[in-house]
Amino acid sequence: MYPPSTHLLFGTEPDQYTFVWPGQTVFGAGSAERLSAWMQHSGSRKPLVVSDAGLVAAGLVEPHLARLRDAGLVPCLFDGVEANPTLDNVAQALDLWHSQACDGVVALGGGSVIDVCKVLLARLCSDAPVEQVLREGDALLCRPIPPFAAIPTTAGTGSESTTAALVKDAQGRKHVLRSRACRPQWVALDPLLTLSVPPAVTACTGFDTVMHALGAATNRATNPVGEALALQAMVLSFHALPLVIAQPDALQARSDMLLASYLAGVAMSLRGTDGIHGLCTPLESLVDVPHAHVLAVVCVPLMRFTLPAATSPYARVARACGLSAKPADDAACAAELVEAIDHLRRAARLPCTLAELGVKADRLEAVIGIALGSPSVALNARKPTRDDLVSLYRAMQPA
Amino acid sequence: MYPPSTHLLFGTEPDQYTFVWPGQTVFGAGSAERLSAWMQHSGSRKPLVVSDAGLVAAGLVEPHLARLRDAGLVPCLFDGVEANPTLDNVAQALDLWHSQACDGVVALGGGSVIDVCKVLLARLCSDAPVEQVLREGDALLCRPIPPFAAIPTTAGTGSESTTAALVKDAQGRKHVLRSRACRPQWVALDPLLTLSVPPAVTACTGFDTVMHALGAATNRATNPVGEALALQAMVLSFHALPLVIAQPDALQARSDMLLASYLAGVAMSLRGTDGIHGLCTPLESLVDVPHAHVLAVVCVPLMRFTLPAATSPYARVARACGLSAKPADDAACAAELVEAIDHLRRAARLPCTLAELGVKADRLEAVIGIALGSPSVALNARKPTRDDLVSLYRAMQPA
Repeated sequence: MYPPSTHLLFGTEPDQYTFVWPGQTVFGAGSAERLSAWMQHSGSRKPLVVSDAGLVAAGLVEPHLARLRDAGLVPCLFDGVEANPTLDNVAQALDLWHSQACDGVVALGGGSVIDVCKVLLARLCSDAPVEQVLREGDALLCRPIPPFAAIPTTAGTGSESTTAALVKDAQGRKHVLRSRACRPQWVALDPLLTLSVPPAVTACTGFDTVMHALGAATNRATNPVGEALALQAMVLSFHALPLVIAQPDALQARSDMLLASYLAGVAMSLRGTDGIHGLCTPLESLVDVPHAHVLAVVCVPLMRFTLPAATSPYARVARACGLSAKPADDAACAAELVEAIDHLRRAARLPCTLAELGVKADRLEAVIGIALGSPSVALNARKPTRDDLVSLYRAMQPA
Repeated sequence: MYPPSTHLLFGTEPDQYTFVWPGQTVFGAGSAERLSAWMQHSGSRKPLVVSDAGLVAAGLVEPHLARLRDAGLVPCLFDGVEANPTLDNVAQALDLWHSQACDGVVALGGGSVIDVCKVLLARLCSDAPVEQVLREGDALLCRPIPPFAAIPTTAGTGSESTTAALVKDAQGRKHVLRSRACRPQWVALDPLLTLSVPPAVTACTGFDTVMHALGAATNRATNPVGEALALQAMVLSFHALPLVIAQPDALQARSDMLLASYLAGVAMSLRGTDGIHGLCTPLESLVDVPHAHVLAVVCVPLMRFTLPAATSPYARVARACGLSAKPADDAACAAELVEAIDHLRRAARLPCTLAELGVKADRLEAVIGIALGSPSVALNARKPTRDDLVSLYRAMQPA
């Protein structure tokens, strides 16, 4: 169904781009209850329901299993996904799939759960060794993808709509599967499921969404459809994040965050991200902290550095978000956006220095080398030199 | 793959909506040359290439046939699609499909050609009588859809991304197939193909795009994703339409129109249209003129009527289009949009009265009856009564 993986690269050539859309998506309070109807319709009779122990303990999983059973299906539960999911989690799910003769997949959880399901599908539909599948993605798939539904329980990574899945191997190395074919074919975005997310997780995953939207809205990729969706995601999440932090049961704000997270995922899959992500990734191999903590440290120095080359896209985002003390002045609007993001990371109580993450100055040489080769850095509106990176990481105040 | 057709209705319930995305799309000058690679990838070896005699005579079709042959495929050409396509056209294409044992479909042409292909696929994949297939759509499809690629040669209906296909029966009655499954799986949006479209066709199809975008951006449907895409389509087409009329070989403006047409199609498939379309449809059974002529007559009176209930969405569109003499004043912005559309229909040299279309006052009683029951009228921001409709059609100055 899909052309080779070179088409997953994010184009920067003017007026040349590709849209590959995710699957069917239903949105709304209670929409998760439509899962069994879709699974029936898909032809699956023994779906493998993938989740994690925390969600099972919180009682979030059983009602869905019960509804699947009421619809005459025979769901099998795998609740062994870890917070930073591993290839071992995938192998366990795969064993259960085969031993129970499953014929469909339901991801019920956050990004980790959905990522495990994506890698599971890639393994199911390919005969190549797992390392090769992770590296080459869709090009190696040789069997039709079984029915795959996802119900996200956090508003953050947007894994339900992205083409990426992150898993660690036994040595702790992170691998990214990039696949369009292994995206969910059906997604329910049900804000009721996100009401009970704890405040710290709400703040972190929500900040991920803002950074995804910002990166996709302002980088050098040329896809104007991804740009429109990223802008919509940015406006929604910029306003809703402070609200869901202040008032966790605000359903409208939770709805906005969930939609923003999904749309930022679609946008990222069309346009990639920017230097903020590019400078984060090598730091994340040094420290084991939430993605949002690293993003929060990196974002403001990188935005200040990028500002002169991104006045126009930053100003467009600022105006869309209603930040426009001087609406006619692009430079003023763009600068306002940087300050607003600085304010937002503090409001979300996220760290602002590398020292807070425990990153020492003497570890940065290797980090800089990796960042220089990052494809996300290459998409940044202003490309940093090695000297720029030295200054940038120094501005993040390492220990 | 798709739930029953009730899900094709456009929701107006707050915070409940569905996204069903079209197929993979490549955009850019020269992108149509990637057709043969996709057809090969899809597994098709004998594609039925559907087009019309005008395009064949203009030499637009042969290069694509040659490239398919060079790639080792055996294309069969059906060039019998009429300007207002008929069920007979579909039957002829179906005969050729069977007699030549085709295994894939390529639509190369405007909305008429793409519409014929959609109905052809629905007939191929269903065993029900054609009238029933047209009425019930996806619910009756019982076989997998063969590979289906489309290359639009006009920027107008956006049929490459909509869920609708219009065909006439032997009695001249119009039928609308609504189907998500029969949308093209692969689309090339190649602005080079639209450079040679004649000025009058450019003006008409371009005005269709503006009206589709406006309707989807401002009606009562609740889908915010369709809204973002409609707004993007509106901004692009509002600025590009006068340019392509004044300077037919302006590639950037042609590109913008082609993208706008596609995006308006996606948006319409998520949100439907508005009262402008609702008031047009019954008029179109009276007179045989281009869709845009009827839209141009109806749009301004209907917008003036809708204005008090649509101040906020009209103002948002106006601001996005850069119409904001008094940016802080919603009512002023909204009124400016109505005037700008009035100006645009005149710049496109489209008719402004029913008299110009040849519609007489004594035919309007039946028209009003049909308009009252129109689902597009029901989606309008202000719902007209029978008396309102009498005044509205009178304001369009019948003969």
